[in-house]
Amino acid sequence: MVKAAAAAGLPLTVIGGQSGTVGGAVPSDGGIALSLERMSRILEVDRLSMTMTVEAGCILQAAQETAEAQKTLLPIDFGARGTAMIGGVIGSNAGGNRVLRWGMMRDMVLGLEVVLADGTILSSMTKMLKDNAGYAWKHLVIGSEGTLGVVTRAVLRLRPLPTSRQTAMIAVPSFGAAITAMRQFEVTLSGRLSSFEIMWNDFYDRMSGGLVHRQPRPLPTGLGYYAVVEAMGGDEECDAAQFERVLGTLIENNTVTDAVIAQSEQQRQQIWAVREDMNPGLADMRPLIAYDLAMAIVDMPVFVDRARAAMAAACPGATMLFYGHAGDGNLHVIVSRGELSDETRLIFDTAIYEAVRTVGGSIAAEHGVGISRRAFLGHTRSAGEVALMRALKAAMDPAATLNPGKIFAL
Amino acid sequence: MVKAAAAAGLPLTVIGGQSGTVGGAVPSDGGIALSLERMSRILEVDRLSMTMTVEAGCILQAAQETAEAQKTLLPIDFGARGTAMIGGVIGSNAGGNRVLRWGMMRDMVLGLEVVLADGTILSSMTKMLKDNAGYAWKHLVIGSEGTLGVVTRAVLRLRPLPTSRQTAMIAVPSFGAAITAMRQFEVTLSGRLSSFEIMWNDFYDRMSGGLVHRQPRPLPTGLGYYAVVEAMGGDEECDAAQFERVLGTLIENNTVTDAVIAQSEQQRQQIWAVREDMNPGLADMRPLIAYDLAMAIVDMPVFVDRARAAMAAACPGATMLFYGHAGDGNLHVIVSRGELSDETRLIFDTAIYEAVRTVGGSIAAEHGVGISRRAFLGHTRSAGEVALMRALKAAMDPAATLNPGKIFAL
Repeated sequence: MVKAAAAAGLPLTVIGGQSGTVGGAVPSDGGIALSLERMSRILEVDRLSMTMTVEAGCILQAAQETAEAQKTLLPIDFGARGTAMIGGVIGSNAGGNRVLRWGMMRDMVLGLEVVLADGTILSSMTKMLKDNAGYAWKHLVIGSEGTLGVVTRAVLRLRPLPTSRQTAMIAVPSFGAAITAMRQFEVTLSGRLSSFEIMWNDFYDRMSGGLVHRQPRPLPTGLGYYAVVEAMGGDEECDAAQFERVLGTLIENNTVTDAVIAQSEQQRQQIWAVREDMNPGLADMRPLIAYDLAMAIVDMPVFVDRARAAMAAACPGATMLFYGHAGDGNLHVIVSRGELSDETRLIFDTAIYEAVRTVGGSIAAEHGVGISRRAFLGHTRSAGEVALMRALKAAMDPAATLNPGKIFAL
Repeated sequence: MVKAAAAAGLPLTVIGGQSGTVGGAVPSDGGIALSLERMSRILEVDRLSMTMTVEAGCILQAAQETAEAQKTLLPIDFGARGTAMIGGVIGSNAGGNRVLRWGMMRDMVLGLEVVLADGTILSSMTKMLKDNAGYAWKHLVIGSEGTLGVVTRAVLRLRPLPTSRQTAMIAVPSFGAAITAMRQFEVTLSGRLSSFEIMWNDFYDRMSGGLVHRQPRPLPTGLGYYAVVEAMGGDEECDAAQFERVLGTLIENNTVTDAVIAQSEQQRQQIWAVREDMNPGLADMRPLIAYDLAMAIVDMPVFVDRARAAMAAACPGATMLFYGHAGDGNLHVIVSRGELSDETRLIFDTAIYEAVRTVGGSIAAEHGVGISRRAFLGHTRSAGEVALMRALKAAMDPAATLNPGKIFAL
């Protein structure tokens, strides 16, 4: 297919599971849309090497469930797990809720097979954690949004399946207290902390009042900042007590104002729903724009102030909600103000990305650049960086066959 | 300097701390040797963001100690810590004894500044864990052995400084039992296992009898395989008991034959010396060749058999010792047989790398390719992969100014 596309001079876009949010898998006008949905096999789970070998069209959730049936964990996890395909997860270097502990998709890809723009099949399907034999071309392809090669197969690193899990909703009076709490969990739990999802009060207020819950809020509103804290482990005897001990100390010294630990799977799901169930929580805010930003953790409160000020000046009356993966420096921002024209979108984008630029942050933490953020790449990458990216694209795909126009304009 | 070298048409090699083992920092004849030893400052430790900003000439150990003084851990660690410079650690994507838990140097580099072949300073000194805004050029430079850019500064990710540590020497009857034991530690300790260093009996025998110890061996010889097992944590109350419990279970079910847990810092150092103190242990084997190989864990015993057979045929009477970072699939092999002529070296290389090739392994796990392994790159990388590497080199350094002839011949 790639050779045929190149020969015909047609652009080729792999469309994956269509769960992306930035237009990264939107085919070019008159181009070829390639689906790998029939290349969906899980070829092997190797429990000795702790690896899984999959084809690119495999749905993430299917891979997760197959791993779990073998008492292993494929740690990458996010909302679109039921539709996202492994090839797209790799192409976008997806993140999600457990990056703090296990890293992004990049960190789970041991072996990779890709088809280059000239039709060369580049296969390095190794199970090795370490391989310094020459350039790490694998890392160049991962996260390149289909512009440097078509991912066809991969070897993924697995972890032991945790047997214990502790989940809490906590409230903290300040952003600084949230970070202090997170670091204390990290220190004592030493590698077991898997999620620390921060929510500003207005996001918490709206999400926890959503129709789907029909339950009391896990904690009252108005307490400042909230966080979903989750740890996983393999030692039932120790883990729960250790988690409670850290939380107890944080409450005693007033770092944490209030907290509830899930006592059942149902309570765990209720806590996570406050963070994840966007549909009921944000229904009356649609249409909305969701931003996916990254910055140094230390810069987050500064950014929020600047973003609020910029939006107040540019578009008074807009609603803004902040939440994100605090430990990763990944902040999501939701902006809404009635109907959204292209002009309004541009005003929003300009205000938000300019605020990101002032703190040296990234306009694309885990969702990619695609088409919709392309115009703002220069806010987060220097001219030299963009020039290098273009040179690499030209070296690997001189005729611009593969998903052209994504990340940067041709 | 880079611009001047390019203008004069001279090759430029950054020589770093000169602790590499593959000739990767040997300057070209008539070329420029550039030392960054005076760019050795530690510019910042940011405890909120858990990052450290350093110049490329900073000695690894100095960075580690500065981190530790701030109750943080820079996890990368290996024998040459006292001479290796951060720029070289990045350029070679160094590994070491804690990759199992914290990954290789690549996994600790958040921000990077490099000088490209045309003199462009590419600076992306971010503190972000997540950044999907375009191609991950940083990962292309990391591990490229100075051939794609000169690393000048970096932002490194820190971890909380562990407050508890458990170290044991264990003996297991088979390679399979070693892996079973390692996985059980991983399951129960859930992220706390930081080292699992396997040693074949003859390596253990020789190293534990070394002059420096003047102590009884930690465990008797002749028990099959040995491993240094180390875990770190932040909870004194739980950690030691948990470690002992896992070990107790493994002894009860005969996975582990014998074991000793360090009861003091001195005992911990004695255990580690068996694995690390090459000078006394291997003194009478010099000159020797040390190989740095990677493969799927499941393939290790097969490889060892094939390597022994190949060496017995090619060079009867040679001594071979095997040890390595089992969890990483990283096997070190030491080969010796009196004086080493270039012809003998080539016979050794051919036997070992051919055995690596048959299991789909890597000829360079953590030490790089440099000059000395260049001729065997094709044993571990396909023609397509090498062609891509050459294309990337040509795109980024068309005049071959930067450390030419390393990894592959010009």
